[in-house]
Amino acid sequence: MPIVSVVVRMRKPIVLLTDFGLGDSYVGTMKGVILRINPDVAIVDLCHEIPPQGVAEGAFVLATSYRYFSPDSIFVAVVDPGVGSERRPIALQTPHGVFVGPDNGLLGLIARDHGVNPPPDARTFELSGSSIKGVVLTEQRYFLSDVSATFHGRDVFAPVAAHLSLGVPVDVFGPSLEEMSFLATPRPEVGPGEVIGHVIQIDHFGNVITDVTPEDLDSIAQPILDVAGQHVRGISHHYAERSGLLALFGSSRRLEIAVNHGNAASQLGVRVGARVIIRDAARFGSQVP
Amino acid sequence: MPIVSVVVRMRKPIVLLTDFGLGDSYVGTMKGVILRINPDVAIVDLCHEIPPQGVAEGAFVLATSYRYFSPDSIFVAVVDPGVGSERRPIALQTPHGVFVGPDNGLLGLIARDHGVNPPPDARTFELSGSSIKGVVLTEQRYFLSDVSATFHGRDVFAPVAAHLSLGVPVDVFGPSLEEMSFLATPRPEVGPGEVIGHVIQIDHFGNVITDVTPEDLDSIAQPILDVAGQHVRGISHHYAERSGLLALFGSSRRLEIAVNHGNAASQLGVRVGARVIIRDAARFGSQVP
Amino acid sequence: MPIVSVVVRMRKPIVLLTDFGLGDSYVGTMKGVILRINPDVAIVDLCHEIPPQGVAEGAFVLATSYRYFSPDSIFVAVVDPGVGSERRPIALQTPHGVFVGPDNGLLGLIARDHGVNPPPDARTFELSGSSIKGVVLTEQRYFLSDVSATFHGRDVFAPVAAHLSLGVPVDVFGPSLEEMSFLATPRPEVGPGEVIGHVIQIDHFGNVITDVTPEDLDSIAQPILDVAGQHVRGISHHYAERSGLLALFGSSRRLEIAVNHGNAASQLGVRVGARVIIRDAARFGSQVP
Repeated sequence: MPIVSVVVRMRKPIVLLTDFGLGDSYVGTMKGVILRINPDVAIVDLCHEIPPQGVAEGAFVLATSYRYFSPDSIFVAVVDPGVGSERRPIALQTPHGVFVGPDNGLLGLIARDHGVNPPPDARTFELSGSSIKGVVLTEQRYFLSDVSATFHGRDVFAPVAAHLSLGVPVDVFGPSLEEMSFLATPRPEVGPGEVIGHVIQIDHFGNVITDVTPEDLDSIAQPILDVAGQHVRGISHHYAERSGLLALFGSSRRLEIAVNHGNAASQLGVRVGARVIIRDAARFGSQVP
Repeated sequence: MPIVSVVVRMRKPIVLLTDFGLGDSYVGTMKGVILRINPDVAIVDLCHEIPPQGVAEGAFVLATSYRYFSPDSIFVAVVDPGVGSERRPIALQTPHGVFVGPDNGLLGLIARDHGVNPPPDARTFELSGSSIKGVVLTEQRYFLSDVSATFHGRDVFAPVAAHLSLGVPVDVFGPSLEEMSFLATPRPEVGPGEVIGHVIQIDHFGNVITDVTPEDLDSIAQPILDVAGQHVRGISHHYAERSGLLALFGSSRRLEIAVNHGNAASQLGVRVGARVIIRDAARFGSQVP
Repeated sequence: MPIVSVVVRMRKPIVLLTDFGLGDSYVGTMKGVILRINPDVAIVDLCHEIPPQGVAEGAFVLATSYRYFSPDSIFVAVVDPGVGSERRPIALQTPHGVFVGPDNGLLGLIARDHGVNPPPDARTFELSGSSIKGVVLTEQRYFLSDVSATFHGRDVFAPVAAHLSLGVPVDVFGPSLEEMSFLATPRPEVGPGEVIGHVIQIDHFGNVITDVTPEDLDSIAQPILDVAGQHVRGISHHYAERSGLLALFGSSRRLEIAVNHGNAASQLGVRVGARVIIRDAARFGSQVP
């Protein structure tokens, strides 16, 4: 009778998002810790260039990306200026992935996507009634034996994710998380014939990405954008549609300003936080400059 | 009787080349799409720092690198300023890999390597008679269900590559590609006792890489380089051979100018496109400055 | 009777550290070479942003990171300004991983960790009596068929590592290495009530990392740091502990100077090599400025 060795493959990928950059060995070391525990796991870099301590930016990038991954993915998000302080390490099990990271608002948009609805100014809110099972990571047997005060990505989050990828259930890692932290999430001001949005990201191509969604412009018949003293008429479909400045809804369904074969951000001189005003030419007519 | 689960491993690697940079989540999201379709595939980053919209630069990097990969590799090349416009998404099956990307010249040097020989100024040319089987990617069942107008890397090329890695034959993805696009590919001017080349790349070390091959210098007995007003005598073998400026044939068999423990590009102040003149000292003798 | 296909998985990961950066295709090409030989191996990027030709910096990053990886890992370290010259390619088999790279001091701290104890000013030292088995890589059948003079990462080190990952024993690759190269490794000057250390790294967050370990401060009761004309009193535990400049022992157990939500290196204007003086306030009292 043949001896059959059954290999149960656990190919839940581990997806990493940090503000560590790739210039140091921080990300590589996290991967070493993960592979030491689960040599067979696939590790994917989602992004490591979140601005240092940019919790809100990290939350946005994670929220616009995670649904492109398999629902059995394990996301490790580390933008963690409070590492070593009282802030808790947590894990959220959702119908679309498990999320591991600090409880500082970084996972707030994920929670909002799964039925947690804090009021805009709430800094903490409870998870009950949502589709999320949350835990506080307290079981030290799943951490590295020496936990530093400055690098929980390596010492706490990476080993917890590796154990999750091996099939350890999320509730084993610690007690239930009753309420978690949220950041203020500014939304565009939508008024009659006018929407005021904000630049939330400048990408590698200099595309200027705002927080304005197609729904925000529902009442605007003929949009004209006002950004950094420049005006853009109409919404284009793709980058090559015309030369010069153009506006379109990009791949994350946000209004963005771009220049074909050019860099809109440097041409406009805008940064994250700048205001973008969209008015309705049908309403304001020729008064719009 | 034991239950045996047979795992057919499909380890054709998927190799990514883009101008997306690593500062955003674009590359990571493409990987999520790929792993969702084929959780077992190996994904390799060839390069993501092609200059934005640098189709010619991307074509060059791909052409000098692909033969170091396994012939069953699937290459996804996305430098795609015309995304969302009329330009077609294509795949080329060659004896050394399958190549997926936009039909904008990016895959032109690969086609030239496999028997497609357009005249220098041709912008399109037919594939018949070559060793390439080309298809236009039209079968939407292999794309993401929502195809954006701005990110075909995520919505078209990544899922097509993932299905190719699972063994789906290339002709299933759409109709035959009869002719494809090419870029002008400037070559050095080779005259009697003089070769005029061009800088095509500056690498991370500041090495100044030209389009001049060893064969271009066949008729030059004692080469003297003239670059940015500086002169370099002779061709060295390796970087540590002497101090100061030196010229050698680098790892992609192109003439390059380097400085041991230094940065030749910043020392010379040259950029991509600059002229490099190689003269024969045996011919011009002391007239060469 | 069922047909059973036995797959012997060789999942020793290959870990890469270079000064190649990620802007070119050098690292990607090395991965192509590795996967062509062992399609099943996991490849991890430890760091590719070692400063160009920064052998000492590369040695430090490797030495502070390798123990977080599995002991069966294969480390490929390429910071190699002497590529193509007389310097030898070597491999070191240790109880915690096999290390492949040039014999230029890059692997010196790994050797020191395993019982090789050269005097501080020795440039070469013998391996006998240590727990290391070293070889000189001479067996060309494990290299690419054409070995360039400028890119041994691709042509020598990558294919050797891939064969090691397949289980080829280290002594097959060439003759025994009797002695290897070392760099000077400056250490802090520890005097009565005063320690003089040096900045050895600035990380992505601007944290200023020194060569001072906790043991170096054993005799300092109340430490006061003097760095770039600024003073920092006491050793903090984590970054969020106070605002402004603070000092703590970081994740590699080195004294570092940081600013919570800020960039200490740019605030202080210090670079690698700068002096950091730690005095004992209990000893010098109010004389310390």
